Amino acid sequence: MSETGDGPPPETHEALMRAAYTALCDHGYADLTLRKIAAEFDKSRGLVHYHYDSKDHLIVALLEYLSERFAERIEATADDSPSDRLDTLIESLALGPSLDGVDGAAYHMAIFELRAQAPYNEALRSRLQENFSFLRATCEEIIRDGIRQELFRPVDVEMTTILLLSAVANARDLELALGEEDAIDTVLVALDHFVFPQLYATPTQDTDS
Amino acid sequence: MSETGDGPPPETHEALMRAAYTALCDHGYADLTLRKIAAEFDKSRGLVHYHYDSKDHLIVALLEYLSERFAERIEATADDSPSDRLDTLIESLALGPSLDGVDGAAYHMAIFELRAQAPYNEALRSRLQENFSFLRATCEEIIRDGIRQELFRPVDVEMTTILLLSAVANARDLELALGEEDAIDTVLVALDHFVFPQLYATPTQDTDS
Repeated sequence: MSETGDGPPPETHEALMRAAYTALCDHGYADLTLRKIAAEFDKSRGLVHYHYDSKDHLIVALLEYLSERFAERIEATADDSPSDRLDTLIESLALGPSLDGVDGAAYHMAIFELRAQAPYNEALRSRLQENFSFLRATCEEIIRDGIRQELFRPVDVEMTTILLLSAVANARDLELALGEEDAIDTVLVALDHFVFPQLYATPTQDTDS
Repeated sequence: MSETGDGPPPETHEALMRAAYTALCDHGYADLTLRKIAAEFDKSRGLVHYHYDSKDHLIVALLEYLSERFAERIEATADDSPSDRLDTLIESLALGPSLDGVDGAAYHMAIFELRAQAPYNEALRSRLQENFSFLRATCEEIIRDGIRQELFRPVDVEMTTILLLSAVANARDLELALGEEDAIDTVLVALDHFVFPQLYATPTQDTDS
């Protein structure tokens, strides 16, 4: 959407997305308004309304922007080993993505709220599906690379991906939504015990306790 | 709360909880009002307002009621083998709990919405924490029983529990919120491949594909 002819110029788009991100993290989705986003925007407030006719239009653009930033971070690891890339992906899922200077927890709470709205909001659902599809495709590609390089065993890529992504994402939600401290760390230890030794062709040290 | 002296009599409580459950599933949390719950209630509508002064008060009572029904279903499996009990628990997490005649998906979407509100709503968060604590304690107890009976290997009970519960719960959320078909089935196959063979002392048939 940011690439179409009627979008704002790149530097304005960047500033708008940062304003939307900050406002979403500060206010959550339910209480968010275009006016509150405009209040975070240094330049002309009229520009926000000129380019986006609703808060959902802007939030969908923000989700696309965040997916692109995530893609760039993953792209930057292209020369790392598949196991390092998988670690980066999982860490990013557990803690990020956040733009500089904004609390990752506030971001994930806002995303959680957006997901809860997804069944009732086609535009949000469609964009969240695209972001998840990209995340899943990235994880699958890393595992396939690992298998091709004979660093990983020939596991079923699809099921391994869903298990890794689901376990980490839900542990993060438990920690953020219910205050279950250590849920992420505990699930990472569980993956180290149950999953990674079966994924890596050269077994890593067993963390059995 | 239903056990305290100032609660409604049992049959009224039961009817009230079913009305609240139906209204929550039909309308979702954000659009729910005490008036909509009262509309589902066959008896005097005034009774709803007499016993509950806010929708959150009633929703918290409903979450407690549902946790009690869940406890009864799990209690009914007390004589089954630990592996059968674990299967029942996981199936229940994937598909239920729902009261008779109400779509499980609608229920889980409503719970998803409640969880997204939890960071901003102390009463909801506290009750959801209790429900999760009960679910976790139940899963841990089943695994401990299995280890005691030497049917399960001496795994780390806490991390095994978090991995199982997180993987299934997030797959369910993906399926419901984003329409990711087969997410639950795929994660169950992944658990059959990666986790259960390491949990069961007598390995079950490997579902490697």
